[in-house]
Amino acid sequence: MNSRQLSQRIEGFRRLKLDLDMTRGKPGPEQLDICNGMLGIVDEHNYRTPSGLDVRNYGGLDGFPEVKQLFADYLEVSPEEVIIGGNASLNLMYDAVAQMMTHSTSGGGEPWFGRKTRFLCPVPGYDRHFSVCEHFGIEMIPVALNSDGPDMEVVEDLVSRDAAVRGMWCVPKYSNPSGVVYSDATVQRLASMETAAADFRILWDNAYTVHHLGGGPAPLKNILQSCKQAGNPERVLIFGSTSKVSFPGAGIALLAGSKANMEWTRSRLRPQTIGPDKINMLRHLLYFKDMQGILAHMDKHARIIAPKFQAVQEILERELGGGDLATWTRPQGGYFISLDTRPGCAAAVVAMAGELGVKFTKAGATWPYGKDPRDSNIRIAPTLPSLEEIRGATEVLAVCIRQVSAGAGA
Amino acid sequence: MNSRQLSQRIEGFRRLKLDLDMTRGKPGPEQLDICNGMLGIVDEHNYRTPSGLDVRNYGGLDGFPEVKQLFADYLEVSPEEVIIGGNASLNLMYDAVAQMMTHSTSGGGEPWFGRKTRFLCPVPGYDRHFSVCEHFGIEMIPVALNSDGPDMEVVEDLVSRDAAVRGMWCVPKYSNPSGVVYSDATVQRLASMETAAADFRILWDNAYTVHHLGGGPAPLKNILQSCKQAGNPERVLIFGSTSKVSFPGAGIALLAGSKANMEWTRSRLRPQTIGPDKINMLRHLLYFKDMQGILAHMDKHARIIAPKFQAVQEILERELGGGDLATWTRPQGGYFISLDTRPGCAAAVVAMAGELGVKFTKAGATWPYGKDPRDSNIRIAPTLPSLEEIRGATEVLAVCIRQVSAGAGA
Repeated sequence: MNSRQLSQRIEGFRRLKLDLDMTRGKPGPEQLDICNGMLGIVDEHNYRTPSGLDVRNYGGLDGFPEVKQLFADYLEVSPEEVIIGGNASLNLMYDAVAQMMTHSTSGGGEPWFGRKTRFLCPVPGYDRHFSVCEHFGIEMIPVALNSDGPDMEVVEDLVSRDAAVRGMWCVPKYSNPSGVVYSDATVQRLASMETAAADFRILWDNAYTVHHLGGGPAPLKNILQSCKQAGNPERVLIFGSTSKVSFPGAGIALLAGSKANMEWTRSRLRPQTIGPDKINMLRHLLYFKDMQGILAHMDKHARIIAPKFQAVQEILERELGGGDLATWTRPQGGYFISLDTRPGCAAAVVAMAGELGVKFTKAGATWPYGKDPRDSNIRIAPTLPSLEEIRGATEVLAVCIRQVSAGAGA
Repeated sequence: MNSRQLSQRIEGFRRLKLDLDMTRGKPGPEQLDICNGMLGIVDEHNYRTPSGLDVRNYGGLDGFPEVKQLFADYLEVSPEEVIIGGNASLNLMYDAVAQMMTHSTSGGGEPWFGRKTRFLCPVPGYDRHFSVCEHFGIEMIPVALNSDGPDMEVVEDLVSRDAAVRGMWCVPKYSNPSGVVYSDATVQRLASMETAAADFRILWDNAYTVHHLGGGPAPLKNILQSCKQAGNPERVLIFGSTSKVSFPGAGIALLAGSKANMEWTRSRLRPQTIGPDKINMLRHLLYFKDMQGILAHMDKHARIIAPKFQAVQEILERELGGGDLATWTRPQGGYFISLDTRPGCAAAVVAMAGELGVKFTKAGATWPYGKDPRDSNIRIAPTLPSLEEIRGATEVLAVCIRQVSAGAGA
């Protein structure tokens, strides 16, 4: 394509007056519809747990037994190792950090408030994780995320040398945005590495544990088991939710970890709440019944969204394949495709696409403080728009990459 | 009644092997039933707000416009002055204090962490308020709650002299447990008093604003308006919930205050959550429709629980009336009756009632740190048990008061 053809295509898109949103990992309406049966499943005749508890009244700090069993299975822990929360796992993560700021960890020691504290942040990563650190003034250190997980040479070096490194964010399966699944070796090294900080914690956001794109959930080595075997049972706090299983914003949030960490968590939840919404827990239990039910439901999600991911791949390949203007990931699950332009192009590409009516996540958002030092990473979220819209949006993206790269001297 | 008759009655109760719980302000099952129609009101055909928003997907940090309008009416503020939260107003209160600990107030200034901070606590009061202070090491100063609100002479003196007094808990209508409604003069003085601390905040827990016992909601002077008029618009954070309107643990929590306080709140909510459960907000909106709907629903609650409160009054009057062994409140709303024994008797009375199979809230719970210096206050929660059970439990209470008072030299 010569520069005149490129200009013509750009003008063509401009005339379409597109208004497409590829910014956030939001399910599309067809995905919401497949869960509609959950809405009315608790009614005037069905408001008791299998063991007879009336979920309409107060009580239960961390969920009732049957829902704990279901989501213990979901996170591959035992029921004593899981806490059922409200509607947002982000809130459980935020609160875990907030508690460490004012009350230290389950291991005792000094609160983090007023002390230099650093978190390792595999990049590209999830902007909302970074916002939690920024809120509390925790310094973020980016670590490269390779195809098998964070660069463990760098991680081991930093945590062993610096006692101010007290935490690390991980999205271990289908990571946001790269879709990386941590290898067994990575999990093993995270569980067993020596840390200078006695109060070091891994915040293990297993947001996409069953969220595959057709090939079934990828295996992931059990981090809690690995931590226990390595003699570091309190190292990891595991998070999950049904936000992209049932309804975003009306799902169930989960926290898992060692019994000591769960006891610590309950003690810090007690002053905050009488307990999360049990009616909504019962809706999930009655609708999914068991892990087989959840897995069957996730197959339906995969059938809806896999073609959308496929469309992005096809168009990127057709438009940019074989060249050196961009590289991108080919995830087997999760909600994103991560694309890297040539250095110095991402912000301009996102801005130009915006002018053509296609919104992408702000360039830099996948890095701590919103600053991608190479200005190359763009997060593509293909689940919300329709297949046709995604095709259009991806073509616009490709055209903008061509145009901006040309301007940058490509 | 002589001591032999008293012993016989005690033995009679012991033989009944009672198992009654008068500890917490939990609605009874008949109260839950009147809201069953809300459970299925959002379904596969009804999942949009009046203005067309699909509540099944992400988005909306603090509620959608129509639900804000409804609960602005409920708290007598404007829609810009209200934030819709999750299922627990306690969590909004906790978080407000937590934020002030690590981030100070909307007025700027230093975080409270590491600085001596004191809260005024009208007594008897709500144990869960006190737990929040204890969690953060905030020193609590008890202030007597009179029939028209906290003893304002003492309050004004303390807040004007001591810049470490940065907060105050208030349950201004049908207070927990006394049922006191603050007078206009009290509200006015709270709004306009001089405080040594620039970052002084009143946590105004208007938990029972529409929760009357048959005579309609008592009037309460508008604290936010009073604070604005007094030039202290940021002084008050107002809390409320539908926990005892719809379903406890599955209701909607509310926070209200000045626009500056709401902007501050949104900025601190942003790192914590994408937003609370909008499906549950829509259930409330579709079921109640408007304030008339809520008020009509509260009349139903009153018809169910007023006879329970009446039964407690009748039996206390019959058993202890005209004597000097106990005094108790006759609330026009709320969830509790507050009873005072002679000094030094409450713990023993609660213990003895427990032995006879009737659980009351732990003596002392209505005071900071669980320590009632006179050991005289007992909180009676008559909503959960049946009418018959309440009669029995109150008789047991009265008999225990007689017996313990006799042992204490009455």
